[in-house]
Amino acid sequence: MHTLRMSRITISPRIRMTPFHESTVAAGLSDLTVYNKMVLPTSYGDLKAEYDRLINGVALWDVSAERQVEVSGPDADACVQYLTSRDLGKQKEGQGYYVAMCDHAGRILNDPVLLKLSGNRYWFSLADSDMLYWCRAIAAEKGFDVEVCEPDVSPLALQGPKAEDLVAELFGEHIRDLRYFGFIETDLDGIPLVLCRSGWSKQGGFELFLQDGSRGNELYQKVLTAGEKYDIGPGAPNHVERVESALLSWGGDTTPESNPFESGMGRFVHTDTDVDYIGKEALQAIVANGGPERLLCGLIVEDETVDAWPLPARTPVRHNGEEVGTMSAIVHSHRMDKTIALAQVRRDLVEQGEVVQVEGPAGQASATITSLPFL
Amino acid sequence: MHTLRMSRITISPRIRMTPFHESTVAAGLSDLTVYNKMVLPTSYGDLKAEYDRLINGVALWDVSAERQVEVSGPDADACVQYLTSRDLGKQKEGQGYYVAMCDHAGRILNDPVLLKLSGNRYWFSLADSDMLYWCRAIAAEKGFDVEVCEPDVSPLALQGPKAEDLVAELFGEHIRDLRYFGFIETDLDGIPLVLCRSGWSKQGGFELFLQDGSRGNELYQKVLTAGEKYDIGPGAPNHVERVESALLSWGGDTTPESNPFESGMGRFVHTDTDVDYIGKEALQAIVANGGPERLLCGLIVEDETVDAWPLPARTPVRHNGEEVGTMSAIVHSHRMDKTIALAQVRRDLVEQGEVVQVEGPAGQASATITSLPFL
Repeated sequence: MHTLRMSRITISPRIRMTPFHESTVAAGLSDLTVYNKMVLPTSYGDLKAEYDRLINGVALWDVSAERQVEVSGPDADACVQYLTSRDLGKQKEGQGYYVAMCDHAGRILNDPVLLKLSGNRYWFSLADSDMLYWCRAIAAEKGFDVEVCEPDVSPLALQGPKAEDLVAELFGEHIRDLRYFGFIETDLDGIPLVLCRSGWSKQGGFELFLQDGSRGNELYQKVLTAGEKYDIGPGAPNHVERVESALLSWGGDTTPESNPFESGMGRFVHTDTDVDYIGKEALQAIVANGGPERLLCGLIVEDETVDAWPLPARTPVRHNGEEVGTMSAIVHSHRMDKTIALAQVRRDLVEQGEVVQVEGPAGQASATITSLPFL
Repeated sequence: MHTLRMSRITISPRIRMTPFHESTVAAGLSDLTVYNKMVLPTSYGDLKAEYDRLINGVALWDVSAERQVEVSGPDADACVQYLTSRDLGKQKEGQGYYVAMCDHAGRILNDPVLLKLSGNRYWFSLADSDMLYWCRAIAAEKGFDVEVCEPDVSPLALQGPKAEDLVAELFGEHIRDLRYFGFIETDLDGIPLVLCRSGWSKQGGFELFLQDGSRGNELYQKVLTAGEKYDIGPGAPNHVERVESALLSWGGDTTPESNPFESGMGRFVHTDTDVDYIGKEALQAIVANGGPERLLCGLIVEDETVDAWPLPARTPVRHNGEEVGTMSAIVHSHRMDKTIALAQVRRDLVEQGEVVQVEGPAGQASATITSLPFL
């Protein structure tokens, strides 16, 4: 399976390059993937150094591929609520919510952060699926008076314990008051952006949502220069850290049939609410029937052969020979000095913390179910 | 820009592998891309040999990434018509139609081949966008009584002048009677598949729509063995041949705002019809206003520096210094011994066959607009 590791990627105009492209190449970009039909850098050649930088310093990530869908107009509140399985009644301007977007059968289609901008204007900051089309279909057929578009907005993430000091130096001390998922519209020497305390790690940090793609490399260089004293360096969403922190990879940890309860998103789904949204009846039925069939869980694995790269595909999880789930990620945790994994497994086995068998890179291994996150 | 050419691809469970994966690795897979969140092989290390095989012999392509969306049920006819800007009134079972799927503003979302299977059952055989979600949104909100799913169907293409002899040997002489886009449900030694006279080249051939992913490598090996006497070999949708033949790459040759008239699909769009479909009013308005602003056209380019790989991004087309369109592909045609390109350019310039300036891999070059296809 791992033979693909050495394959070259063919880029064509169907796959978009990012506004930070020249800077990432200059920084030594070596590995990448495709996400929302855009290049997503995955490494600059030294995954361990990139991990250490994220845990101890500050890492600079080009996550432009985390695209935005903007919903604006008189019916924006109603439209966005209808698209989201979380009660948005208390969401304030300047606040982001982690939400599940579901289809009418309750399957999870995306797990964005929803930013409430000024007035009737929202951004879904998205995982890897074409929610632009989904939102346009719903808005048009339901007759909402909104405009739905993908704006020129590309996030650049600063992640790690030293990110806050760097961002305070760039934007002012007031940014220290931002709560998690809190954001402001601002600029850096005239480069327009939304600054949000967010990012796909648990090491703290911010995302600069660049609002002018023509100025990407300018922004990148300004941050890089100011970051020198904080030992800044290039990085990318880190597979080991995200498994340690149990951050969901939609489409990776989930299957096409997964509902949000099976995806670790239960606490962001409101079924006991008056608001109307897509998939509500299906999700209520799951609750009424006692809960989902599977749960996302952690595994402590007896296997010392794994590296820091993703599994190329989900593999079966078995219990007494019976297939009871799928494993979607397995890594060696540097901080735990253990091999850990993420899986969706039959709920009764998860609740009992059973021992299961998994298929790691080197073959069968025993694994003990544990709660999430690991760290 | 071409620095990405040597980047490695990171595969994770979010990106699906194909049922033919082991066979493509054994055949020497060297380059790939991501299409519909699935691996799409792009080369086995020798693009010229792959081109020659396609033009003179028979090439075996893993095009599993051309996913199907199946619409079935009592309202399938009405639902599929509503999703399609072509009048389907005369489509017969066993017949494929090349169609545009548009949004409510007339933008083209995909350019699938629509296969009408037995009864109220259709497959959209898709380009690279999440039409599963689009179709489910429309079907649910519009209240069509249908089921929409992505079935376990993965096409394996046999392309080139010797493909018909090989397919006749495998399936029987009757397959020679199939018309273009005509298809039958059949099997190969019990491996269930739909056999269709189709494929993303103009060199003739067939696609075997495998209906059991667990038997992919078995099917591949059977075809490879039977193909030995026809000098079969591995290949992939060929960038040079597809430019020569002017086969549309949706998302590459089109922009997010393109309508089908600008994408060379005008003759497959019916605006003077009683049937109702998404985008009809917007498309009628374009016709009423005299036609689209741009047209897809060919260019004969004064530039000898191009190779057989795709451009990494669209580049501007200029006329007297003014930007008048975008170029999406530029290759050296082996059969024409000329450098040729595809572009969307302002309609009046296309209709007059003007000389324009393009940005090729080596910089500015003059180009003469010409009609399509080149060959």
